[in-house]
Amino acid sequence: MTPRQVINASVSPKGSLETLSQREVQQLSEAGSGSIYTLFRQCALAILNTGAHVDNAKTILDAYKDFEVRIHQQDRGVRLELLNAPADAFVDGEMIASTREMLFSALRDIVYTESELDRMAIDLENSQGITDYVFQLLRNARTLRSGVEPKMVVCWGGHSISTEEYQYTKKVGHELGLRKLDICTGCGPGVMKGPMKGATIAHAKQRMSSGRYLGLTEPGIIAAEAPNPIVNELVILPDIEKRLEAFVRVGHGIIIFPGGAGTAEEFLYLLGILMHPENRELPFPVVLTGPKSAEPYLQQLHAFIGATLGEAAQALYEIIIDDPAQVARQMVEGLKAVKQFRRERNDAFHFNWLLKIEEGFQRPFDPTHQNMASLQLSRALPAHELAANLRRAFSGIVAGNVKDKGIRLIEEHGPYEIHGDAAVMQPLDKLLQAFVEQHRMKLPGGAAYEPCYRVVS
Amino acid sequence: MTPRQVINASVSPKGSLETLSQREVQQLSEAGSGSIYTLFRQCALAILNTGAHVDNAKTILDAYKDFEVRIHQQDRGVRLELLNAPADAFVDGEMIASTREMLFSALRDIVYTESELDRMAIDLENSQGITDYVFQLLRNARTLRSGVEPKMVVCWGGHSISTEEYQYTKKVGHELGLRKLDICTGCGPGVMKGPMKGATIAHAKQRMSSGRYLGLTEPGIIAAEAPNPIVNELVILPDIEKRLEAFVRVGHGIIIFPGGAGTAEEFLYLLGILMHPENRELPFPVVLTGPKSAEPYLQQLHAFIGATLGEAAQALYEIIIDDPAQVARQMVEGLKAVKQFRRERNDAFHFNWLLKIEEGFQRPFDPTHQNMASLQLSRALPAHELAANLRRAFSGIVAGNVKDKGIRLIEEHGPYEIHGDAAVMQPLDKLLQAFVEQHRMKLPGGAAYEPCYRVVS
Amino acid sequence: MTPRQVINASVSPKGSLETLSQREVQQLSEAGSGSIYTLFRQCALAILNTGAHVDNAKTILDAYKDFEVRIHQQDRGVRLELLNAPADAFVDGEMIASTREMLFSALRDIVYTESELDRMAIDLENSQGITDYVFQLLRNARTLRSGVEPKMVVCWGGHSISTEEYQYTKKVGHELGLRKLDICTGCGPGVMKGPMKGATIAHAKQRMSSGRYLGLTEPGIIAAEAPNPIVNELVILPDIEKRLEAFVRVGHGIIIFPGGAGTAEEFLYLLGILMHPENRELPFPVVLTGPKSAEPYLQQLHAFIGATLGEAAQALYEIIIDDPAQVARQMVEGLKAVKQFRRERNDAFHFNWLLKIEEGFQRPFDPTHQNMASLQLSRALPAHELAANLRRAFSGIVAGNVKDKGIRLIEEHGPYEIHGDAAVMQPLDKLLQAFVEQHRMKLPGGAAYEPCYRVVS
Amino acid sequence: MTPRQVINASVSPKGSLETLSQREVQQLSEAGSGSIYTLFRQCALAILNTGAHVDNAKTILDAYKDFEVRIHQQDRGVRLELLNAPADAFVDGEMIASTREMLFSALRDIVYTESELDRMAIDLENSQGITDYVFQLLRNARTLRSGVEPKMVVCWGGHSISTEEYQYTKKVGHELGLRKLDICTGCGPGVMKGPMKGATIAHAKQRMSSGRYLGLTEPGIIAAEAPNPIVNELVILPDIEKRLEAFVRVGHGIIIFPGGAGTAEEFLYLLGILMHPENRELPFPVVLTGPKSAEPYLQQLHAFIGATLGEAAQALYEIIIDDPAQVARQMVEGLKAVKQFRRERNDAFHFNWLLKIEEGFQRPFDPTHQNMASLQLSRALPAHELAANLRRAFSGIVAGNVKDKGIRLIEEHGPYEIHGDAAVMQPLDKLLQAFVEQHRMKLPGGAAYEPCYRVVS
Repeated sequence: MTPRQVINASVSPKGSLETLSQREVQQLSEAGSGSIYTLFRQCALAILNTGAHVDNAKTILDAYKDFEVRIHQQDRGVRLELLNAPADAFVDGEMIASTREMLFSALRDIVYTESELDRMAIDLENSQGITDYVFQLLRNARTLRSGVEPKMVVCWGGHSISTEEYQYTKKVGHELGLRKLDICTGCGPGVMKGPMKGATIAHAKQRMSSGRYLGLTEPGIIAAEAPNPIVNELVILPDIEKRLEAFVRVGHGIIIFPGGAGTAEEFLYLLGILMHPENRELPFPVVLTGPKSAEPYLQQLHAFIGATLGEAAQALYEIIIDDPAQVARQMVEGLKAVKQFRRERNDAFHFNWLLKIEEGFQRPFDPTHQNMASLQLSRALPAHELAANLRRAFSGIVAGNVKDKGIRLIEEHGPYEIHGDAAVMQPLDKLLQAFVEQHRMKLPGGAAYEPCYRVVS
Repeated sequence: MTPRQVINASVSPKGSLETLSQREVQQLSEAGSGSIYTLFRQCALAILNTGAHVDNAKTILDAYKDFEVRIHQQDRGVRLELLNAPADAFVDGEMIASTREMLFSALRDIVYTESELDRMAIDLENSQGITDYVFQLLRNARTLRSGVEPKMVVCWGGHSISTEEYQYTKKVGHELGLRKLDICTGCGPGVMKGPMKGATIAHAKQRMSSGRYLGLTEPGIIAAEAPNPIVNELVILPDIEKRLEAFVRVGHGIIIFPGGAGTAEEFLYLLGILMHPENRELPFPVVLTGPKSAEPYLQQLHAFIGATLGEAAQALYEIIIDDPAQVARQMVEGLKAVKQFRRERNDAFHFNWLLKIEEGFQRPFDPTHQNMASLQLSRALPAHELAANLRRAFSGIVAGNVKDKGIRLIEEHGPYEIHGDAAVMQPLDKLLQAFVEQHRMKLPGGAAYEPCYRVVS
Repeated sequence: MTPRQVINASVSPKGSLETLSQREVQQLSEAGSGSIYTLFRQCALAILNTGAHVDNAKTILDAYKDFEVRIHQQDRGVRLELLNAPADAFVDGEMIASTREMLFSALRDIVYTESELDRMAIDLENSQGITDYVFQLLRNARTLRSGVEPKMVVCWGGHSISTEEYQYTKKVGHELGLRKLDICTGCGPGVMKGPMKGATIAHAKQRMSSGRYLGLTEPGIIAAEAPNPIVNELVILPDIEKRLEAFVRVGHGIIIFPGGAGTAEEFLYLLGILMHPENRELPFPVVLTGPKSAEPYLQQLHAFIGATLGEAAQALYEIIIDDPAQVARQMVEGLKAVKQFRRERNDAFHFNWLLKIEEGFQRPFDPTHQNMASLQLSRALPAHELAANLRRAFSGIVAGNVKDKGIRLIEEHGPYEIHGDAAVMQPLDKLLQAFVEQHRMKLPGGAAYEPCYRVVS
Repeated sequence: MTPRQVINASVSPKGSLETLSQREVQQLSEAGSGSIYTLFRQCALAILNTGAHVDNAKTILDAYKDFEVRIHQQDRGVRLELLNAPADAFVDGEMIASTREMLFSALRDIVYTESELDRMAIDLENSQGITDYVFQLLRNARTLRSGVEPKMVVCWGGHSISTEEYQYTKKVGHELGLRKLDICTGCGPGVMKGPMKGATIAHAKQRMSSGRYLGLTEPGIIAAEAPNPIVNELVILPDIEKRLEAFVRVGHGIIIFPGGAGTAEEFLYLLGILMHPENRELPFPVVLTGPKSAEPYLQQLHAFIGATLGEAAQALYEIIIDDPAQVARQMVEGLKAVKQFRRERNDAFHFNWLLKIEEGFQRPFDPTHQNMASLQLSRALPAHELAANLRRAFSGIVAGNVKDKGIRLIEEHGPYEIHGDAAVMQPLDKLLQAFVEQHRMKLPGGAAYEPCYRVVS
């Protein structure tokens, strides 16, 4: 390793933090030096490593143990002072513009939001309050643009995929970009980066300088995975559920690429919402796609949905194999329906107010053994409730696989037991085994996968 | 009178009200249909008469008794429905763009502000809280632009002046505009209009399409005097004191043209603040100016300041007679000092945080006979306190002259008695008599002026 | 008169002269110091007096006898050095932006055009060549904007009209501006200024910062009448006929206000062209309008057209009395037809290629006594030929009234004799007498009018 | 090969061809259907294949034998009709914006230039006339932007380089882009593409949407190598010498990456010009650079320059090995000197008028055996003349290697004989052998290299 290069610098904001009152700067400064300092410091460090090829939070944190970021108050506004910052974030002593932007996005979303939360008079205890909060965070980030026609396409999928699958996501992004659509992803590597890259080149070909590459993340993720430098709008939502809600309220259509248990969780979240009776007439284009090599994976996922949630669920999306142009054309068609529907219903283009999201989807699921064991997984349930419970099951598996708390619970109590009808349990078991065989269950160290669950039918 | 022409219409907002949450629209709708509806309706009607040559609130209100404005909530945002609106505000059925802008400025500043006030967690009980509130209102109106160099010139003076004086204000505005300065006024006729008109032509000559014509008003005034159509930013502050504070925090220099008791009140407000010891080093260019015919008036005002507040007060401004170009050059010089000072002190260009305004200047003065009689008007006071009390005296006289409550008080109890040192009372008496002789004391009906005060030394 | 103030300055171009080759600058410099220097100097001086209230070329020329303008070559481009230039064109030593623009418009149109004329390989001997030349001059001035919808309204009429008529032209301009139409005039005072002024205010009300105020002039006129400062595009065509052609090719509709013999000449030019059989289907909105007081004048003009050119000619325009909004609405309707027609015929929006202009209208008429006497003025002629001859008759009268050469010819040989059918001569005589009575025949000195013609039927 | 997909379409121009006169469109249409049709068709086809991974002109021409492009005249302007065009140039039936732009760049530079050439009154018989012509072509392509600070960096080098070298050019481009510099290349693959790619990403990181990627090409090259799609300004110069002159007049600094005989020719062209006594004081930053693996190559080139042209020539450039950031920093420093120099000498930023280019460098060298044999290659010559002759020698070798005419000459008469002093011949022989060993002498078919020359000392 080359000797670590660091730099000290002082930077001023651009954008929504330019015009603060003295009181606001003071609160910011206080909040930033208090309990959430650690979080902000981590995010800042991740952002300063944007573009670096290290996607391991720990490695970065270890390399820059002496990194500090201080929030200074001055009459004129807020200023950040950085000590021992990674030198790669600077060019001849000046911070790269996109890094500066993201740094202040983090300040805005983490510190400012915190300091202003009580001011917002938001009731996080009910569903509408949570939606309102997501709205305010997005508006404060200037992500909501009134009057712009629906063209924000969300791309979901694994962050660790095969080269062939990655190339495919770039091609799909390129075809979307040629049709002047914008891209929204979770802003890390893999499927979160490929479509943005492809769209960037395509937007340049179409002489479109206003292409949007929206990255929605949350503190736990951004600290581990630096947002890729193509992202030109970064919003850090407070937790996974609010991030998921932001995706479906701000996106006009969703493309799902191959991924693991996390992607399955997202897919079930989406289906669970779209199957809600109140959303029946609401158009929401969803496409499952991948290269030829991913066809078995996609077909298996499709079969699983059919076996558990039924044909009505399968009717909510389209599967397209190895045809990026067709994916884009399909999306363009779907967006037309979205536009017409919102116009007719007088709904905003920039925020999907009419989408019904039940409180169950807005609240975190705590994957204790008891909670996992008592999940109702039966075809007797209304399909959207079964979808919600299946999502919880996958959420638990993701936790058991990779999250600190989940791993400790498994070590202590052994694998989760998941109970349910054979009609649900058999397809689930099959799907999970396939994930393991296809190496889609990622383990922190890269060791052979030992399932954290037991399917009991 | 030609038969009144009316129109029904539905308009959507542009600007800061474009992206509202469902909750916000609902609150707006509730607030607008409640107690402040009358106020909003009045303002809306005044704005729809922008450009009409009727500057009498009552005439307009009478002519459009059946005018209604309804705030509608729809998923997509807010919408205003107008019934029996003055047809002049429309061209072939479409509302004129500037009128639409101002209408939503009124909605924003009157209804929205009201509905969000408790959310703002602002403490109006202390000086800093009030300043913060003024800041938030101006920021919410997008009036504060970070990084723009100091060039906002406030023009104060009478709304009812001679043609010669009016032409002179146009010429001064023209010279300011040729030097690419922006104009801020109280947004009515007379001195509030002339400089904007002159600057508009000059900005066009300088091929400057971004010239700013900022109108600061308050509900009582806007309802009586339609903002002139040149105003391209309109902010409605909640009361006179906050409007005065907005002037001195957002303006970088001030020009005072001839006027009556109201202008004298503003002038004393300004001097009172600038004489505060903490403001001693703060540069703030102030110019008194008028055509040749106004020289006696200006000299008399100057003499009054000298006799009461002393030479230190006189040193705070410059008098320039009949030389518009020199006024503008003087202002350009003064703004350079402002810029350097703010840069050195790290203060914002867009808001004068460093200017100390004592709470006494921020709170309304209630002109009862007792309050007027007990004003301390003595040269023994520190000059800035004497200035504050003289301002209150003038404020009372304005009320006694033209405001409902003041007039009733005078009718009931006879003229105010103003007590004080002969050294202050004699110049005051002389100044007031001159105002009367020069017809600068305007009466509603235009009748001969009967003083509402008695100077007792 | 206050002592004349002058300034020496050096200015660089903006716009099309910014990027010249060394050879071009050299040619410019040579051309400008040669025979056309006098012309350029006159125009430059007129422009530097823009906004001054002296509309007499001689007065200005006399006041600035020592004014010089030198064209300098430098590697980087062209630079103008001004000696003893009117100080009013500068603000604190810097030339006003619009004046600088117009100065380089004059350099471009007078000197550059001259130096590049042989390069253009244009055949001025045939009709198409002349049209091509007009096109190139307009394109070189960046006046032709591809793809912009038809909205350029030409306003013709007298430069010396009554205050009431002037106010009316402002109101019409205001109504045009409210409908987002652009204005093109001859760029002097009177009717050439009023509509631009009105439109400026209206464009500001409609928040349109891209309003166009196109002034088309020619060297003889600009030297006498400074272009008004509202003009934001100035083109100096080489002579009267090319200027007239520019009006009808670049304008999408024409409004004719009251005027004298010159306005009549323009009106007959227009009718002569529109009556050409090849233009029969080509839509071209024409409105005659004026305040109530101008109704007799307009009716008389109308009657004259009826008596000489017949009902077909009268059908080509609409008369609207004292209704500015109706004039604008009529124009908006007419422009829709123009747009549809050009779209159907695939003609450019920015240049009326399909309008047939016979060579007779493109060539100057030399008003000798013999040419005037031999004009065929008979209803037996095809109407568009009679119109052409009537235009020549008016052109001769204008010359006999005000132009050096014409006046000398009249002094030498007595009044022109105009022969023709009684059916044409009587209405002509009547019209001319009315012009005299209404003081629409302007004489240089302001003396009582002595007709320069005799109508012989 | 997948079945060829074709499309028929009709496209209209954007940019400088939007506003043409009827005569111009007619000439265009005539010229385009005449003798130069073949050339234009070839270029159009190459452009429609932009982005395709076929860099062989013949392959493309064979695949689209039935491709046709027709120039249509219509009143509104020019229109291109395409028959059997490659479908990849379209998205859902609409031509990609950048392809459309380049197509009309070709029309402008090939057909329009041709049709207007005699109009331009340019004397191609003398040096200044040629320079003027290059200027006019660049200006007509809107490439010359007045007032923009020097920041156009030319990148030269081979179109067929190793992957390591290609990656290195991307890194250098990235570092240039981070410093907000623009890129100009010959617009094909290899070194012509890498720096543009790197700069695109860097410009995006710096939130610079106005980055320029200027491609200068000539008909022979563009037809064989499709311009890469990053190019956002394309100019097709008429021949190699005018293209070289365009590079050195429009570029502010030059970076030379590894390449073959063609790159050596360009390098000697540049040194020959910079060594001219009149250019002695003119700053022109030149950097030779490559990855570590290219160090021997660069050192050998350096040694060759030292041995033949001497230390004075070596002093004109800097060699930087494997340090992209240092290359960019060096260039930034050099550009500062360029800016200062042009400011002092009053030269344009957009065109290097002060650079002296002798006519010998402007005229093509015809590589007959006699011309090659009689080249004077002696250290006794003034260095800049020796450089000129060495350039001719390399030009001949390039022709003998790859150009039709050169290859036929070699087949007929055997290898060229190059005579000269041993002091020049030995280093030359050594350099050429190294090129062969390093596979930098590219042959059309890829066969083993058989030298087309014999060095005789």
